[in-house]
Amino acid sequence: MNPMEWQPDRASQEPLHRQIEHYLKQKMTTGEWAPGMRIPAQRQLADMFRVNRSTIVTAVDELIAQGLLEGNAGGGTRVVSTVWDSLAAKPMLNWHDYIEAGTQQPNSQIVQIINHAEFQPGIIRLGTGELSPELLPVQRMQDVLAKLSTRAMTLGYEEAKGSMWLREALSNRMAGLGVEAPSSSILVVSGALQALQLISIGLLEPGSSVIVEAPSYLNSLHLFQTAGVQLNGLGMDEEGVIVQDLAHRRQTSRDSIMYTIPSFHNPTGIVMSEGRRDELIALSERERLPIIEDDVYRDLWLDEPPPLPLKARDAAGNVLYIGSFSKSVSPGLRIGWITGPKTVIDRLADIKMQTDYGSSSFSQAIAAEWLTSSHYDDHMAELRAALRERRAHMLGLLEQHLTGLAEWRKPSGGFYVWLRLNDGISATRLFQDALRQGILLNPGSIYDRTMGAFLRLSYAYASHQELSDGIVQLARLIQTQVRA
Amino acid sequence: MNPMEWQPDRASQEPLHRQIEHYLKQKMTTGEWAPGMRIPAQRQLADMFRVNRSTIVTAVDELIAQGLLEGNAGGGTRVVSTVWDSLAAKPMLNWHDYIEAGTQQPNSQIVQIINHAEFQPGIIRLGTGELSPELLPVQRMQDVLAKLSTRAMTLGYEEAKGSMWLREALSNRMAGLGVEAPSSSILVVSGALQALQLISIGLLEPGSSVIVEAPSYLNSLHLFQTAGVQLNGLGMDEEGVIVQDLAHRRQTSRDSIMYTIPSFHNPTGIVMSEGRRDELIALSERERLPIIEDDVYRDLWLDEPPPLPLKARDAAGNVLYIGSFSKSVSPGLRIGWITGPKTVIDRLADIKMQTDYGSSSFSQAIAAEWLTSSHYDDHMAELRAALRERRAHMLGLLEQHLTGLAEWRKPSGGFYVWLRLNDGISATRLFQDALRQGILLNPGSIYDRTMGAFLRLSYAYASHQELSDGIVQLARLIQTQVRA
Repeated sequence: MNPMEWQPDRASQEPLHRQIEHYLKQKMTTGEWAPGMRIPAQRQLADMFRVNRSTIVTAVDELIAQGLLEGNAGGGTRVVSTVWDSLAAKPMLNWHDYIEAGTQQPNSQIVQIINHAEFQPGIIRLGTGELSPELLPVQRMQDVLAKLSTRAMTLGYEEAKGSMWLREALSNRMAGLGVEAPSSSILVVSGALQALQLISIGLLEPGSSVIVEAPSYLNSLHLFQTAGVQLNGLGMDEEGVIVQDLAHRRQTSRDSIMYTIPSFHNPTGIVMSEGRRDELIALSERERLPIIEDDVYRDLWLDEPPPLPLKARDAAGNVLYIGSFSKSVSPGLRIGWITGPKTVIDRLADIKMQTDYGSSSFSQAIAAEWLTSSHYDDHMAELRAALRERRAHMLGLLEQHLTGLAEWRKPSGGFYVWLRLNDGISATRLFQDALRQGILLNPGSIYDRTMGAFLRLSYAYASHQELSDGIVQLARLIQTQVRA
Repeated sequence: MNPMEWQPDRASQEPLHRQIEHYLKQKMTTGEWAPGMRIPAQRQLADMFRVNRSTIVTAVDELIAQGLLEGNAGGGTRVVSTVWDSLAAKPMLNWHDYIEAGTQQPNSQIVQIINHAEFQPGIIRLGTGELSPELLPVQRMQDVLAKLSTRAMTLGYEEAKGSMWLREALSNRMAGLGVEAPSSSILVVSGALQALQLISIGLLEPGSSVIVEAPSYLNSLHLFQTAGVQLNGLGMDEEGVIVQDLAHRRQTSRDSIMYTIPSFHNPTGIVMSEGRRDELIALSERERLPIIEDDVYRDLWLDEPPPLPLKARDAAGNVLYIGSFSKSVSPGLRIGWITGPKTVIDRLADIKMQTDYGSSSFSQAIAAEWLTSSHYDDHMAELRAALRERRAHMLGLLEQHLTGLAEWRKPSGGFYVWLRLNDGISATRLFQDALRQGILLNPGSIYDRTMGAFLRLSYAYASHQELSDGIVQLARLIQTQVRA
């Protein structure tokens, strides 16, 4: 490509990244860039067009989202071969214009790479926030299915808020956590993610803002941003989010709502203390700040149960509480729930009906059978024992191989070790180097832009052997960076 | 209420319905309108404020959506008792502001009433577009569950596009319909509604427009309108949508996409002819008009299988095809699929991952087991026999009781009889009168604003006895109107 031949028009109303995107697309349409070709590095492109690298990233991300380019494991970007064919051959219809037109933004590039890499055979997933296949209760699930196969199941639609059997079981469960949640105030959802999705479109207007912990799982999702909602991070210490800073912040800015994971926070593993919980609820009442409490890791305590939920302290009805079976029993169930003031739940249920007419009756029956039999509690006891072993294994490996290269704390539950790499080590480079070697990491930057020095490690997913191999390999890659 | 005390300000920038909404809300906040109180009829309110009835309807709908008012079976509107309490007592947090703020619009009032009434015990549902509980394959489903209980199931997340087992089974199924759909071009969704939802946010931009049949199922949903997309109706005759009118229309306006139910159309039951299908595909290629083919009723043919799908005639990749298990096997499964150009499917899969991380693994395994065993075909044969009986029963009842009062055609498949009431009979009044007597109807107006003279009847849902009682009662109510 001759660097002199084209430059974006800085006087144009069209944003630079759009101009570049169209220019790059033209390269493919005309055949100048052939299918499978590796395109110039983003740095080079930035130099060529005399723009910031972020402008290039935006343009390239868009083309990836349109299926014209694909990132590869080595960090390079290639023209997709099959898609190019259809684009160049006879584009009876330019679906790409439609794909560009939708309001929903594609996942960020790094999250797309992670989503994709997760299904590559043989890859070691050191950061994955799921239970390992070997920890999933296959035998118990077979028992549950066998039991359900003897019953007349609901094959039709469930009520808008979900099966009464499951909602009553959840209501009992919540009562055990000090939360009074009648079944009419519970909405069954297809996983906690859907609860957040419903909140983002049902309760927040474009331009509103959400306080999140810094770092936060929410930053790794696109769904709030897609709804035009901004995320504002608030610092944490070992007791959780720093409520005093939130109080100060409220004096100058009025965020619409707060999102928090008080128990076994994702990605840091921190448990919010009793005192901090009380402080936060007091602030919420004083300031009329609604709170989304994401409590999906609660039952994964390893040392002792966490303090009661924020929702149990919420006399004013300010807290929306989200729970899930995905982290404890089976992500494949796609069953979670949300509880809060009935009017809010009614509204969210109406939107859910418009979105998917409710969650799978089968998944709901399975979840209800789990909760109302002894399976759930028995399984959790076994799971905790297994996770304790895995935690010990990972902490031992880190001690042995990463001492002096990184810092971390022992988590008291959940899945994660939040690792801070020592100065001078680039987590982005580490991510790329590791991926080339078949190791998938979750860099801290996807949870907070400023947390590039961190990695979220998970002792829940990879096997014993994979954890050993992965951490050894990771240590080697870090050593390489340190020595260079 | 003193009609002199308040009037909306016609000079204000705030729309009249908003002003009225706020005024009515104030009546409740101040306690002037007590919990449980029946508010004045919409006609009266319209007179009081000297506005169109539709302005009142908009304001009242909004208050219903906010949980402050509720429609009741008699057609009146009352102040909700519980919600009023929380509003008046100590509104620590005004969730209503949040509920108003979300971008998703609530379901229309009549659809909300229908959704709600469907769960009232004892109600006769004469228009419901689902299989009756007695038609659902409970025994076969138990067999399927028993079989799955002996297998090691996927308890973890599935691939973004859905379980490979199911997608391959669907790919085979589509091949049998003349559609070449590799598993990489199939996305498993949680019902056809979710497919439409993904299209509305993933492929259409606000301000775009969709051609639909007039009447169309799509008008009974809010989801396209919520995405800022307009629906434009196109007339039908007994061969389906009138493609020639579409060709004329294209000369002056460019709709973004077309949505059609070519086989056993909802609500009319019409089957698009072979010739019309070819015409439509030719137009789609010539005009580069993409098509959404909603084919969820295909397997419910009663006389002979319908012509091959539009998708089977689509060499240019202009058609997105949607199928579902909800109408044939079990709505509770919440499993459907969409197939089309791989780039489009990739995009929709990415959005689905952001929305709910995929559909229930259990539902997917159940669906795959259905398709790959003899259960599906055997069940369909039985189901057709049962639906033929039901169709005959309903047509007999209509013949006996509604001759001279309404007109209809014998449907050749699907669930519906599209009934045209003779002139002078108000379907809206009929809806209200019937609801008071425990009979739920689907008025034509929810499928097209101009089709107030129609009813969608369904022979699929109500029992034999309920159908008899319901039609007799319906005839009586119509007679009452005719005599008045």
